[in-house]
Amino acid sequence: MKKEQLKSGISIRRSLAEASAEQLAAVKSIIAAVQQEGDAALTRFTEKWDGVKVENLRVGEEEIAEAVSRFEPQLLEDLTEAADNIRTYHEYQRQQGYTHTNDDGSYVAQRVTAIPSAGLYVPGGTAAYPSSVLMNVIPAQVAGVKRIVLVSPPGKDGKLSDGVLAAAHILGIEEIYKVGGAQAVAALAYGTESIRPVDKITGPGNVFVALAKREVFGEVAIDMIAGPSEITVIADDTAFADEIAADLLSQAEHDPMATAVLLTTSEDLADAVSAEVEKQLQSLPRQAIAAKAIADHGVIYIGETMERLIEAANELAPEHLEIMADDAEKIADRIENAGAIFIGRFSSEPIGDYFAGANHVLPTNSTARFSSALSVYDFMKRTSIIYYSEQAWQNNEAKIARLARLEGLEGHARAVESRSWKKENR
Amino acid sequence: MKKEQLKSGISIRRSLAEASAEQLAAVKSIIAAVQQEGDAALTRFTEKWDGVKVENLRVGEEEIAEAVSRFEPQLLEDLTEAADNIRTYHEYQRQQGYTHTNDDGSYVAQRVTAIPSAGLYVPGGTAAYPSSVLMNVIPAQVAGVKRIVLVSPPGKDGKLSDGVLAAAHILGIEEIYKVGGAQAVAALAYGTESIRPVDKITGPGNVFVALAKREVFGEVAIDMIAGPSEITVIADDTAFADEIAADLLSQAEHDPMATAVLLTTSEDLADAVSAEVEKQLQSLPRQAIAAKAIADHGVIYIGETMERLIEAANELAPEHLEIMADDAEKIADRIENAGAIFIGRFSSEPIGDYFAGANHVLPTNSTARFSSALSVYDFMKRTSIIYYSEQAWQNNEAKIARLARLEGLEGHARAVESRSWKKENR
Repeated sequence: MKKEQLKSGISIRRSLAEASAEQLAAVKSIIAAVQQEGDAALTRFTEKWDGVKVENLRVGEEEIAEAVSRFEPQLLEDLTEAADNIRTYHEYQRQQGYTHTNDDGSYVAQRVTAIPSAGLYVPGGTAAYPSSVLMNVIPAQVAGVKRIVLVSPPGKDGKLSDGVLAAAHILGIEEIYKVGGAQAVAALAYGTESIRPVDKITGPGNVFVALAKREVFGEVAIDMIAGPSEITVIADDTAFADEIAADLLSQAEHDPMATAVLLTTSEDLADAVSAEVEKQLQSLPRQAIAAKAIADHGVIYIGETMERLIEAANELAPEHLEIMADDAEKIADRIENAGAIFIGRFSSEPIGDYFAGANHVLPTNSTARFSSALSVYDFMKRTSIIYYSEQAWQNNEAKIARLARLEGLEGHARAVESRSWKKENR
Repeated sequence: MKKEQLKSGISIRRSLAEASAEQLAAVKSIIAAVQQEGDAALTRFTEKWDGVKVENLRVGEEEIAEAVSRFEPQLLEDLTEAADNIRTYHEYQRQQGYTHTNDDGSYVAQRVTAIPSAGLYVPGGTAAYPSSVLMNVIPAQVAGVKRIVLVSPPGKDGKLSDGVLAAAHILGIEEIYKVGGAQAVAALAYGTESIRPVDKITGPGNVFVALAKREVFGEVAIDMIAGPSEITVIADDTAFADEIAADLLSQAEHDPMATAVLLTTSEDLADAVSAEVEKQLQSLPRQAIAAKAIADHGVIYIGETMERLIEAANELAPEHLEIMADDAEKIADRIENAGAIFIGRFSSEPIGDYFAGANHVLPTNSTARFSSALSVYDFMKRTSIIYYSEQAWQNNEAKIARLARLEGLEGHARAVESRSWKKENR
């Protein structure tokens, strides 16, 4: 790995990847076709892109049952335990409404309700991640979303992966469609004969999915558009090089664009981690991907003090931050910008990806400065409620009319005053 | 106003207004110039677009003091009372973090903190709205945002309006810059010699401001891009036509694109409101704007039952919904989709714009189905924290490794397993 002395103003931020004009044009034409032709367009695009002719877009009950019966019982148990942990963590996020009442009988309130429906995109093929099903569906369920829909591209056999269907089964999700790509996003946004539209679309996908989500944004809500994975490790000389290297590689194996950074006060550790990364890479199944990520976006920064490492982590604002050092908890308290913080030697990052319960959909590209993990809040909406009694109106009418006129909005002033107009002519 | 029988599938949704290619090109070139030239570009664009040469971009303390001293004391008192109400309402939104602890010593936590900095765009000229200052700044202050910056285009005299400066003064905001348009947004996103960049940009603006916010989105966070104002009134024959008309016009006067809808069970009321709107329009200072809005986007729908009116309101999902009918509170309970609900005759919409305390930045264009008013939550971020003890790791290592391998991510499995590798070679 590259080794550098820590300086000010380090960054892992990249300019947002621009898709090609051809890709955007393709996505726009797919969306238009789905809007005009509905299911016929979905079937056609599935044949074209996924190489399979799908008879029924919707996954049948028996298909789900078969997948679950084929699925290894131990893994079903593991997924169930992970789902329980995720639900426990997210249940703390349920929001309550409130009402503020005044002496004059007026009140102002906030009512919190679930959005009516949500559609989750699950990638297919080699990147079919049951954990993504759990991480996207559970917050929506905890929020109370009534209708939750899964879409995922079928394999060449016309089926979805057993793992994805098993995860859906554990969560009780039954509305699942075999369709992927921009066409799936268009179907969720505008609806077809088979698929009723939803209010929010979440979940990861390739560039076509990301572009389609951007295109339909405003028509429906979308979650963040997540970039390549990032891990930053803060470590002092109490840490083990092989463990740091393994954790760095766990994120590097996701994507050749993934970022892996070590911040350390120890030159010895830096050298040892660098050697360990090379060594462990040799036997990694996804070696090509991880090696490219490490070569292009892997850096070890040496800083003189822990103080400087903390500053650097806050500058980087990484998606995942591990702290393997003395007083790791105290260091964590001083981290302002990170999607998720993993404290101490035994909190290896994949624990968060699969099991601990916190959400693994996290802000990337330094956006942890201002944004947050996918959550129950993302599936709730708030409605303001205002009630003014006659007394409250009388007490405040003149003030409100003055403020409206200050802004040149006479119609606003008259509206408030209209309650005192004579009503003889009614 | 147009009068129609209520049918299913009514909508006030519009396809999102597309800006012209020329406007987008202009915005992109302004942003590039600000990135390259900094303050010099800001000064040049201010001279070009606002017709004034500004010496100091930052508003001086004495300028604020002068504006406040010129400002009518009664209005200062009104603004202060409004600010107090807004603060009271928003203080309920302060989020708490939480920690979930397990028996094995592990914990998963959510830490809630304010985003570090926020920039608020305040329109200038005739549309200088002190109330917008209050509605954008107060949620950021309640969230605990340390650095809050205002930007607003100067008038021909090189100054900001007394009302805007007075509102800023009441809130204790001191970092204010005389710059508007796309150049102000670029400065807030990328920084110049005078203006340090911020993490989130909020506030209303014209098409150039909206386009610039979209362009810098991702680099910084932005709030919603609000569309033209909307009001829908549900009324039965207990309501007063002149009051409904006045309230409809209060939103129509905002913008020729504003929407004003009456849903009623009463043919008589429909006719009376229609006549009142015509009558009141005659003397409205912003008659031209309001008349165009009413002509293009004003409709009265007659429905047979209150049931149908409620369904229709939920279909419309309006920004503002007034309910002037028997049992208004019970009807409000059945409204699922609306930005803000105003209950009963005395809760005229402008009360919410200025005074009641709820936020007047609300979702438009039917997005109330899935989005919410500007709030304290918009200025906070959440960081996940994961701590696994050795015991917790031991108990769960095998499960996590199995789940990782199920997804074909061997590197993830090895990372978790690395904690049990022998350490002799260290």
